Amino acid sequence: MKLWDGRFSTETAKSAWDLNASIAFDQRLALQDIRGSIAWANVLNSAGVLSVSEVEKINHTLKTIAKEFKTNDFDFKETDEDIHTAVERRLGELIGDLAGKLHTGRSRNDQVATDFRLWLLDHIPILFEKLTELQVVLVKKAELDIDLIIPGYTHLQQAQPILLSHWWLSHFWSLSRDIERLLQIKERTAVMPLGSGALAGTTIDVDREDLAKELGFDFPSQNSLDAVSDRDFAVEFLFFATLTSVHLSKLAEGIILFSSQEFGFIELSDAFSTGSSLLPQKKNPDVFELARGKTGKMIGNLTGLLATLKALPSAYDKDLQEDKVPVFNAFDTLMSLLPVISGALETLSLNHEKIKASLGGNMMAVSLADYLVKKGIPFREAHKLVGEAVKIANNKELDLNELSLAEFREVSKEFDSDLSDVFDFEKAVSQSTAIGGTAPLAVQNQIVSAKKKLQEALHIK
Amino acid sequence: MKLWDGRFSTETAKSAWDLNASIAFDQRLALQDIRGSIAWANVLNSAGVLSVSEVEKINHTLKTIAKEFKTNDFDFKETDEDIHTAVERRLGELIGDLAGKLHTGRSRNDQVATDFRLWLLDHIPILFEKLTELQVVLVKKAELDIDLIIPGYTHLQQAQPILLSHWWLSHFWSLSRDIERLLQIKERTAVMPLGSGALAGTTIDVDREDLAKELGFDFPSQNSLDAVSDRDFAVEFLFFATLTSVHLSKLAEGIILFSSQEFGFIELSDAFSTGSSLLPQKKNPDVFELARGKTGKMIGNLTGLLATLKALPSAYDKDLQEDKVPVFNAFDTLMSLLPVISGALETLSLNHEKIKASLGGNMMAVSLADYLVKKGIPFREAHKLVGEAVKIANNKELDLNELSLAEFREVSKEFDSDLSDVFDFEKAVSQSTAIGGTAPLAVQNQIVSAKKKLQEALHIK
Amino acid sequence: MKLWDGRFSTETAKSAWDLNASIAFDQRLALQDIRGSIAWANVLNSAGVLSVSEVEKINHTLKTIAKEFKTNDFDFKETDEDIHTAVERRLGELIGDLAGKLHTGRSRNDQVATDFRLWLLDHIPILFEKLTELQVVLVKKAELDIDLIIPGYTHLQQAQPILLSHWWLSHFWSLSRDIERLLQIKERTAVMPLGSGALAGTTIDVDREDLAKELGFDFPSQNSLDAVSDRDFAVEFLFFATLTSVHLSKLAEGIILFSSQEFGFIELSDAFSTGSSLLPQKKNPDVFELARGKTGKMIGNLTGLLATLKALPSAYDKDLQEDKVPVFNAFDTLMSLLPVISGALETLSLNHEKIKASLGGNMMAVSLADYLVKKGIPFREAHKLVGEAVKIANNKELDLNELSLAEFREVSKEFDSDLSDVFDFEKAVSQSTAIGGTAPLAVQNQIVSAKKKLQEALHIK
Amino acid sequence: MKLWDGRFSTETAKSAWDLNASIAFDQRLALQDIRGSIAWANVLNSAGVLSVSEVEKINHTLKTIAKEFKTNDFDFKETDEDIHTAVERRLGELIGDLAGKLHTGRSRNDQVATDFRLWLLDHIPILFEKLTELQVVLVKKAELDIDLIIPGYTHLQQAQPILLSHWWLSHFWSLSRDIERLLQIKERTAVMPLGSGALAGTTIDVDREDLAKELGFDFPSQNSLDAVSDRDFAVEFLFFATLTSVHLSKLAEGIILFSSQEFGFIELSDAFSTGSSLLPQKKNPDVFELARGKTGKMIGNLTGLLATLKALPSAYDKDLQEDKVPVFNAFDTLMSLLPVISGALETLSLNHEKIKASLGGNMMAVSLADYLVKKGIPFREAHKLVGEAVKIANNKELDLNELSLAEFREVSKEFDSDLSDVFDFEKAVSQSTAIGGTAPLAVQNQIVSAKKKLQEALHIK
Repeated sequence: MKLWDGRFSTETAKSAWDLNASIAFDQRLALQDIRGSIAWANVLNSAGVLSVSEVEKINHTLKTIAKEFKTNDFDFKETDEDIHTAVERRLGELIGDLAGKLHTGRSRNDQVATDFRLWLLDHIPILFEKLTELQVVLVKKAELDIDLIIPGYTHLQQAQPILLSHWWLSHFWSLSRDIERLLQIKERTAVMPLGSGALAGTTIDVDREDLAKELGFDFPSQNSLDAVSDRDFAVEFLFFATLTSVHLSKLAEGIILFSSQEFGFIELSDAFSTGSSLLPQKKNPDVFELARGKTGKMIGNLTGLLATLKALPSAYDKDLQEDKVPVFNAFDTLMSLLPVISGALETLSLNHEKIKASLGGNMMAVSLADYLVKKGIPFREAHKLVGEAVKIANNKELDLNELSLAEFREVSKEFDSDLSDVFDFEKAVSQSTAIGGTAPLAVQNQIVSAKKKLQEALHIK
Repeated sequence: MKLWDGRFSTETAKSAWDLNASIAFDQRLALQDIRGSIAWANVLNSAGVLSVSEVEKINHTLKTIAKEFKTNDFDFKETDEDIHTAVERRLGELIGDLAGKLHTGRSRNDQVATDFRLWLLDHIPILFEKLTELQVVLVKKAELDIDLIIPGYTHLQQAQPILLSHWWLSHFWSLSRDIERLLQIKERTAVMPLGSGALAGTTIDVDREDLAKELGFDFPSQNSLDAVSDRDFAVEFLFFATLTSVHLSKLAEGIILFSSQEFGFIELSDAFSTGSSLLPQKKNPDVFELARGKTGKMIGNLTGLLATLKALPSAYDKDLQEDKVPVFNAFDTLMSLLPVISGALETLSLNHEKIKASLGGNMMAVSLADYLVKKGIPFREAHKLVGEAVKIANNKELDLNELSLAEFREVSKEFDSDLSDVFDFEKAVSQSTAIGGTAPLAVQNQIVSAKKKLQEALHIK
Repeated sequence: MKLWDGRFSTETAKSAWDLNASIAFDQRLALQDIRGSIAWANVLNSAGVLSVSEVEKINHTLKTIAKEFKTNDFDFKETDEDIHTAVERRLGELIGDLAGKLHTGRSRNDQVATDFRLWLLDHIPILFEKLTELQVVLVKKAELDIDLIIPGYTHLQQAQPILLSHWWLSHFWSLSRDIERLLQIKERTAVMPLGSGALAGTTIDVDREDLAKELGFDFPSQNSLDAVSDRDFAVEFLFFATLTSVHLSKLAEGIILFSSQEFGFIELSDAFSTGSSLLPQKKNPDVFELARGKTGKMIGNLTGLLATLKALPSAYDKDLQEDKVPVFNAFDTLMSLLPVISGALETLSLNHEKIKASLGGNMMAVSLADYLVKKGIPFREAHKLVGEAVKIANNKELDLNELSLAEFREVSKEFDSDLSDVFDFEKAVSQSTAIGGTAPLAVQNQIVSAKKKLQEALHIK
Repeated sequence: MKLWDGRFSTETAKSAWDLNASIAFDQRLALQDIRGSIAWANVLNSAGVLSVSEVEKINHTLKTIAKEFKTNDFDFKETDEDIHTAVERRLGELIGDLAGKLHTGRSRNDQVATDFRLWLLDHIPILFEKLTELQVVLVKKAELDIDLIIPGYTHLQQAQPILLSHWWLSHFWSLSRDIERLLQIKERTAVMPLGSGALAGTTIDVDREDLAKELGFDFPSQNSLDAVSDRDFAVEFLFFATLTSVHLSKLAEGIILFSSQEFGFIELSDAFSTGSSLLPQKKNPDVFELARGKTGKMIGNLTGLLATLKALPSAYDKDLQEDKVPVFNAFDTLMSLLPVISGALETLSLNHEKIKASLGGNMMAVSLADYLVKKGIPFREAHKLVGEAVKIANNKELDLNELSLAEFREVSKEFDSDLSDVFDFEKAVSQSTAIGGTAPLAVQNQIVSAKKKLQEALHIK
């Protein structure tokens, strides 16, 4: 069945039909489409286009069709161009010509925009839940590992000792921003296009504010031309998903590094690792590599839709049909990644000995400079003096903490017997007490803040 | 001058230095860098690292240096690796070793993140202003052209008549969403990294909430590892700019089409057009083509930074230095495009005759279907009948409104003498009265809503 | 069945398994996988790992399995992690433990790279054929429309008259470059990874040059580390597909414009158009809009894989699994677009009257300038004088050819009675006789060149 | 000076002028523009538009102007819209009205496309040289380190021992493919647009094949519409540059990892490292991080231009002006990266002890499996048995080579006293003798092949 062949003389070419049809992917909008149709039938009733008995018949049947979708009993036909056509075709099979009244004053242009927004409004909360679950895991890890000092890196070089807790929490905060963005996108998605017709608005007498509320939207759209072509919500969702994925790739990169033999801080559980078909000893962090690798696909989804939208001229163009596949893919990707990452983090084990052994004495350099600053040397000069000590140590293939006091005093007479106090990782860590620092007290406060964020999130949910 | 060569034995290779140095582009952060340094000097004073006279000397001199930047009298040296080094080098020239105390407890990692955020916070309001100026122009045009009916298009095919006002306003609403996003990004940018040190926090005793307020931030960052590597604000800004640019490309595409000889609705003013070096008659909409073409660059800026961020492992990596050029470019591009677009829209002239002549009678098809629906025919059937009438008209190389009543009655006996009323563009337009529709009354209401939005924006400013 | 669980104690988590498994998409490599396995079994026989009867048994059974795939009788199991595992599992079902010998000296790393390259080598010729078919259509159109003059545009403004043939052929040449690229990519794809093992090469004694020939490759790879991670061929294919798609989008944009009511040059056949569910008169160029819109997806495919590949460290990483979906998508997209475009071009009809009526006299401006140049006026001055004539004509709302000689002579006394000869579109077109120009003779030569290209292509095929 | 204001009444708005002008970046085309003009003047002479004395005067003066550019004495004016205008303006200053004859039969559309291609043809050889220089370094390193065994990784897990030489060479081959692509792009760039006019070809009588040869092109373009809008060469160059950059990012990632304290295989020389402003001990691999990070920008350049080109309708559109900045940026980026990488690789030092210590006994697992295979156990079973041995070793926190024969025999009685031979890294490495394997002999052959490639390259140069 076609909704539009009155003026056409020739059959659509098979190849053109196949290219054009969107049913393969827009069938995911089935329940949203039916929900929208039920609301629209009520509008048509209020406007006098449908009688009470007609609307009851239509809506009862639409609910039956919804059940068919839910139980996978809906029988798609080759001639179903898209989900809207499929539902209207089925409605016609069940109630005859009356089905033909439902599309009065409505177009697939406003219909699909409505369906797609409803779908996203339905699915954002599910994603929200998976994101907060990962956050919960990160906070748990932070609580567990509060006493554990690991090397902190910049440029992948050992820089300063930090708490492992602090590292876990750093990933908590990036996810918090993702969640904040997601909720703001949800608000911009909750604007209803229905009642915009093909492009000019509908000629049906309808209170679109009421209709919006009935369908769970916050507001009706303000301009019908804009409403049928606005895909900001889709591209914003892709951006959210991409940036979230970038954050996950950062976490993944860390875990992959820490799981290597050379770092050796972490061992993933067998349940979240895979092996090699050739090399019997291998235990690979595939799930984290996939988290990292799929970021590329996410970037591609975003870039692709932006490029598709570029320079589209008027209200609705068929190019917009390209909006759904990337959004579904982005959603599915996050939904498959997040629980696996949560599970893998929860079940990994730490190699305390390897971690301890890895703490390099050179990471005390800035503490040494601080030591000199406290003796009145300007920081820039102190930095230089410690740099010289590092040079001496390097030449002797030693770490800073392995130099003798005498050797230090060759660099500066300010170095004295109290110097040995400096080479204490726990003391070093405990110095960074300001908000956001890695001192145990500051990290404890950070955990409190993080839990508060989670509480707020639960409240939103 | 290098801030870091204590431990190094060999000079940096010239090629490596040139690759590494960021002064060519990060000098745009000069004033923000100085503002940050003044605040940090105050912190060092409170913490007892600097005496009162020292902090006064430093801050007085920093202000002098700021003036040098403002008057373009600052003299960059080849050895200035970046803006932070340049400022500290100059400070040293003016006040000697005391300058070396300023960097105590601070790293270029938290410093550059602070500078960059401050820069964006300074410049978002400027962009906001240019965006609202374009919105004001669009509302003005909408008020002026409230009586003018143009063809409305979907798939670039004439679909239904609409008000030109409605078309102008459609672009208003997409910009409104851009502005909303920009303001939300501003909030996420207003988080202060200063006090995060290189990665682990600072050992200086500092109230970071006070420091944040002093610098005009809303909050201090919660995690130092996250703070020195978080570039969400930059990539979010790029996303905002890209989506805004996509919206401008849509507007541009419309203007380019309407300015073609074939459409002929619009003539750009000479002040915003350009000619051809070979073809003397040409008047080209270059500025709109550039608005459209630069969308590609914007997409590239966004994609590029996302790809750069992908899979970066730890706190700070040098890759992050790639964040500034795209943000500056995106800002500059919008700042150069927006006023030109505003100016070009304000000064264009309309060709009323061409517009009127272009209104095709076939756009009445849905009104004809509505006519049948009112006579009790289900819409789907009505659609089919009108489709047949279109087919007949096409075969006779006529428009729908050129068919005789007799010809219509061959399709359906429901067509009657009241049919002629249907072929009235003004009447057709006036039917779409629901919120967001193209009826003059609805568009008047839309203008009121738009003005209210602008009032709110002025209030924010 | 897993190929790797010897060292694992716990079952893989369901969520991790689902994330990790690639069978959903890599099953498209089934026949290539089997072909590779047959060749490898022969290698193992030569190397003494398999006896003659063993290799015969294995290869006979592999061919049986290939048949199962061809007839859709292969029964996938939930435990089939990927196509390699599925085939080996099935082999084991049919011949028992002997199946376990086949993977000797081979890894899924070199296996999948081999399969994927074989797949591309199998499918490039199919794409090549569709591309040349479209080229054939373009040449046919060029031959048919050799007498038809249309406006030529720059900046979407009428610039100079051209032959429609010339326009059709412009798309021929961009496709020629695409084909040239495709064939070069084919050569770079024809490098065999098999025998690279997991990363270090194989310990099996194998003549890889012979093996390459047997499998239809040109050469064996030169470095096993490179061979298992090299995805240049995949990303190059995506680039080819994207640029081809950009070319199709340019053609599509032209057709969409020419099909609008305002241009009205072209009417698509019903077989390659679609209608509107609401607006009965609409006949939309959906297939060309999809050709245009899908370019975004293609850009996304390319960008995505490039971002995935960025900064991957060592020989094989699981991220590489993300290579297949975009390549399959790019191939499928072109395969669905190309025949539809060919069909739509072949069946469209031209509106000669509309085309003729659209030829604007202002397009004669450069001919007028040439006229003055021939009278000895420097071109730059001639350009200026004609520009003034245009200004006068515009003010009178006339086209250049509607000005009187007297009016022209107000601009320059060089204009004379022979001026009327200039305003002849056919004469104007016939002036551009140099290679690549729009003069009928030059276009005839172009058609000859194009046909020669096609002949060469047929020869390649 | 404008080349086109005859028909315009109003001055161009300042903001529009600034947006439109391209002189800021297209001045890099100055010498190519002049070369093209000299050739065109000769054409005009042959065609009778310029006398011999005129062409001599013009060409002599153009050479004078070229000198001004070379010595940085050319004085740009605010009114120079682009490089073509600047040159023609200067020509006019020096020789008066005669300058106005030069633009006869030529447009900036074919002119800029010609200039840009000439620029690329001039610069590709320079890039080619830098690429081969890096290849030379890689081969040198491979020769030096032929005896050194390092762990080979997949999934960043130790997989099998390999020669460091083999690792160096893996990067050689990816660059070889880049070079091959670059040379093919050069051929497609060597097609001359000059003589295509604005879009329709030129009316000047010109032998474009001769003209092409004179300018150093291989062929004239075949279709003027295509020629003025074809930017395939630019986007192809960006693709080449991006994929090259991806390859450099892979190398960079390896060096960054190997330079970390945890791996510790490599120490960069001071000349190619940088330090930290806060942490005195730091020596950071900034140049490799920039190589990695700039890959993002390269991806963005490519994506951006592709998105710009998408759906451009007709011959020349101003959007095409966006082609130059990304190409210049891509060229400059590679030109700054390549010598730094070459230098850094040449000067780095290896830590043999750390490398030796890092070789994990578990990497012998596949050799163990091979051992069992040789005793007649099917590989799949052998893999499983070794996996069990790994499990036992892991539980005892041992490496495979630390298990006793008795422990091995608990897994399989096939393990025997000859087992100890297996645990020899050199022997393991020496097994992979097939082409492309990591055995010293195979790597020696690889070096020979690589040198042959370089010889061919020198020949091309």
